[in-house]
Amino acid sequence: MDDSMSATSVSDVNDRLSALELRVQQQEDELTVMKAALADVLRRLAASEDSGANRKQHGAKANDN
Amino acid sequence: MDDSMSATSVSDVNDRLSALELRVQQQEDELTVMKAALADVLRRLAASEDSGANRKQHGAKANDN
Amino acid sequence: MDDSMSATSVSDVNDRLSALELRVQQQEDELTVMKAALADVLRRLAASEDSGANRKQHGAKANDN
Repeated sequence: MDDSMSATSVSDVNDRLSALELRVQQQEDELTVMKAALADVLRRLAASEDSGANRKQHGAKANDN
Repeated sequence: MDDSMSATSVSDVNDRLSALELRVQQQEDELTVMKAALADVLRRLAASEDSGANRKQHGAKANDN
Repeated sequence: MDDSMSATSVSDVNDRLSALELRVQQQEDELTVMKAALADVLRRLAASEDSGANRKQHGAKANDN
């Protein structure tokens, strides 16, 4: 068995691990922002659907779908 | 060349790899959930737009935009 | 201290790093697609809300909410 992990490759492994940890953290931050945006969309879409349903009942006699 | 990868650093690398693998798996799961939620939003939004278009044609003579 | 990083484990570390780098890249690509889809949803939802607000003012006297 040779001494297969040179100082260079240890440093390389550390660099790749650090780069991955940074990217994964950035993705977690982006996912958090997107979850909040999606929750906002769902709330507004429900309000819009509710408003549309009210118009159908009280208003313009639109087609059902 | 020195013996640069000590038992401690091997364990550390394994720990960091395992932690990253867990986080990446959790993000994949969250992305799957968000893709499903987004597909649902797109479907409901299309239905809402279609319903709104029907109201314009048959109903309240709303403004075009 | 033993020579704790064998050729096998170095290869294993490289394999796990490469696999993680691939998965993280795929997630970045998916996040980019989802951000674009979410931006499209927000634009269409705002247009839909604006259209609904116009109908309320000029059209069917729907309920406020």
